[in-house]
Amino acid sequence: MPPRSPLAPEETPRLPPIAGVRLAAAACGVRYKGRTDVCLMEFAPGSAVAGVLTRTLSPSAPVDWCRKALKGGKARAILVNSGNANAFTGKAGDASVRRCVAAAAEALDCRREEIFAASTGVIGEPLADERITAGLPGLIAGLEADRWAEAAGAIMTTDTFPKLATRTAKIGKIEVRLNGIAKGSGMIAPDMATMLAFVATDAKLPASVLRPLLRRAAERSFNCITVDGDTSTSDTLLLVATGAGAEHARIARADDRRLADFAAKLESLLVDLACQVARDGEGASKFITIDVSGAASHAAARRIGLAIANSPLVKTAIAGADANWGRIVMAVGKAGERAERDRLKIVIGGVKVAARGSRVPDYDEAPVAAHMKGREIAIAVDVGVGRGHARVWTCDLTHGYIDINADYRS
Amino acid sequence: MPPRSPLAPEETPRLPPIAGVRLAAAACGVRYKGRTDVCLMEFAPGSAVAGVLTRTLSPSAPVDWCRKALKGGKARAILVNSGNANAFTGKAGDASVRRCVAAAAEALDCRREEIFAASTGVIGEPLADERITAGLPGLIAGLEADRWAEAAGAIMTTDTFPKLATRTAKIGKIEVRLNGIAKGSGMIAPDMATMLAFVATDAKLPASVLRPLLRRAAERSFNCITVDGDTSTSDTLLLVATGAGAEHARIARADDRRLADFAAKLESLLVDLACQVARDGEGASKFITIDVSGAASHAAARRIGLAIANSPLVKTAIAGADANWGRIVMAVGKAGERAERDRLKIVIGGVKVAARGSRVPDYDEAPVAAHMKGREIAIAVDVGVGRGHARVWTCDLTHGYIDINADYRS
Repeated sequence: MPPRSPLAPEETPRLPPIAGVRLAAAACGVRYKGRTDVCLMEFAPGSAVAGVLTRTLSPSAPVDWCRKALKGGKARAILVNSGNANAFTGKAGDASVRRCVAAAAEALDCRREEIFAASTGVIGEPLADERITAGLPGLIAGLEADRWAEAAGAIMTTDTFPKLATRTAKIGKIEVRLNGIAKGSGMIAPDMATMLAFVATDAKLPASVLRPLLRRAAERSFNCITVDGDTSTSDTLLLVATGAGAEHARIARADDRRLADFAAKLESLLVDLACQVARDGEGASKFITIDVSGAASHAAARRIGLAIANSPLVKTAIAGADANWGRIVMAVGKAGERAERDRLKIVIGGVKVAARGSRVPDYDEAPVAAHMKGREIAIAVDVGVGRGHARVWTCDLTHGYIDINADYRS
Repeated sequence: MPPRSPLAPEETPRLPPIAGVRLAAAACGVRYKGRTDVCLMEFAPGSAVAGVLTRTLSPSAPVDWCRKALKGGKARAILVNSGNANAFTGKAGDASVRRCVAAAAEALDCRREEIFAASTGVIGEPLADERITAGLPGLIAGLEADRWAEAAGAIMTTDTFPKLATRTAKIGKIEVRLNGIAKGSGMIAPDMATMLAFVATDAKLPASVLRPLLRRAAERSFNCITVDGDTSTSDTLLLVATGAGAEHARIARADDRRLADFAAKLESLLVDLACQVARDGEGASKFITIDVSGAASHAAARRIGLAIANSPLVKTAIAGADANWGRIVMAVGKAGERAERDRLKIVIGGVKVAARGSRVPDYDEAPVAAHMKGREIAIAVDVGVGRGHARVWTCDLTHGYIDINADYRS
């Protein structure tokens, strides 16, 4: 078990209960020994759900299932295991999901399409689903409203700390809550960038409203982080609204102005979780925030930011505390988006180091060097062609990444 | 100076002279001390040239110059320095190129557009071009036909061995020669994949014939290797035909059947040089050949191959001698090209490990484990949708890469 990331938040947030949500975790021995590895999140009957799933062409069996089940827009439970991703497991993998879903649907007396499944861990090994279904009665018996921390712990794989976040938002004058948990530290790249994240709210919002809200917030959070440019077969982000909180105005459209605060808090919560994932990047020693401005569009800015964030040469330079902005220039160039080389501006730790197509001749290197030695690195790039801007987050590439990934299976 | 890559060829090939080509190298102290860092290649008057240049949007000043000069299709010399890439150096960088080109054109009594320039090394530092022009008279005085090895040595940066290759080809019944040198070990990724490569032949072929020949051969060689997915600001591949060899039939079109052998040998020479670059990948301990078949097209196969070759998770697994084919599945999925998950086949070291959507249950792990411990790794993937195939080359991702890149500038 690797030590807790030096970039982890100092305190793990304590999540309040969310009306209509109960959770449980259990040690089912799917693959790991001596730790919890299955979590069940139960929602009040009638809860609405929206999801964003990996765009990989080789999705895991539970991702295939979720894609189908999301069409119904209703969720009664999410059943998650760690240790085995149930990906590239062929028809046997689909059968495993079906058995888990059927068992949960029967136990909770709901339709199968209201049970969501997610798996994370090793790819290509058959899933011992009988261990999960055997654990189900105990999980159901153990459901409690205050088990968010246990749930976040059970879904970890190479994570070095559990990832939790909470927000309150107002819909009109009524306060609602949002809680979220996530896991992920390797195989983290956009579309989508985390492996698993589950968010619940006690607001009463139909799936048709949740979907655009979630898509937009994911675009500006999980799709803006990267650890290694690799895309998971299992990425799953689900948002469930139980409608069990205080009664608020009926909302029928995502662009209803009374939802503005809720949308902002949802994005803030997803950014929080996404940054925790980047902070737990395998082997990470520095957390990097990259602001791109002056791009042709938001999407162009994001692609440029991710080209910088994904460059092994940029990431290793930062690991070495080297303000090697030449590599940032290289990464901007390879992003394939419009950029005006002779207007490019690069700011590191608040100090302008390059402008108008060449380095700033007399910039003060001392504060830049001091900034690069810290744990939080800030890079700002203006590409000088338009008004598009985006912020992306990543971590450095260190010996620790190689250590972790050169012998993950053995 | 890092030790010679363990993947380097056992012997450095000795290149024969090419009629109409003379070379010289000198220690001009552009940045390095105690080694050659400038090379001049001189060609007989009237030599034709074609080139392929980086597609980055932040090209170096010499790349900008070459793009312009290539339109003329004639080359009298190539002037190359290592140590400084003259990239992101603004108007001062353009002026440096102009001074070098003007000095060489005057000394060789030719038009400026017949002088090609290339620079490789650190980005963003002003180029001390006066040291290059000061060295020019000595370089010209030292031009000899048998200095290919010296030329290859002078253009190295983080390379651990010089890269040379030679071929003979027949045009009709007449034998012609091709020699090439290259440099590159980091910032190696397609479009284009090397930093610098220069090829000369004594065949008599106009630029209009050289261009399509070179483009096609580059597509199947330099554009099929990757070390770290990063694209250089300086990538330059030039092919010069002096026409000073034995007289052969006049060729006016690239698709002339009498050019078939020449085209094949050109591709073979570029593949040789490109693989030498991948074998010198920063920190490389294993050379990886990836064959992709069953794709929708050649381009699709190449993209899938490069997605595998660029995956840090695949590369670290191979560094750890782990036949982690689950990560290959992941990389195929993220490539964004059509692939049939349930028909995917993966062969490692000649052993089928996965087929029809899941692992081969009873495959013999012993020969696969033995293969993974070797220096030459062979991966074959069939994605089950068409007849497109491609071969790409890369190396593993090791602690050595981090060592080299975390303190390149310091």
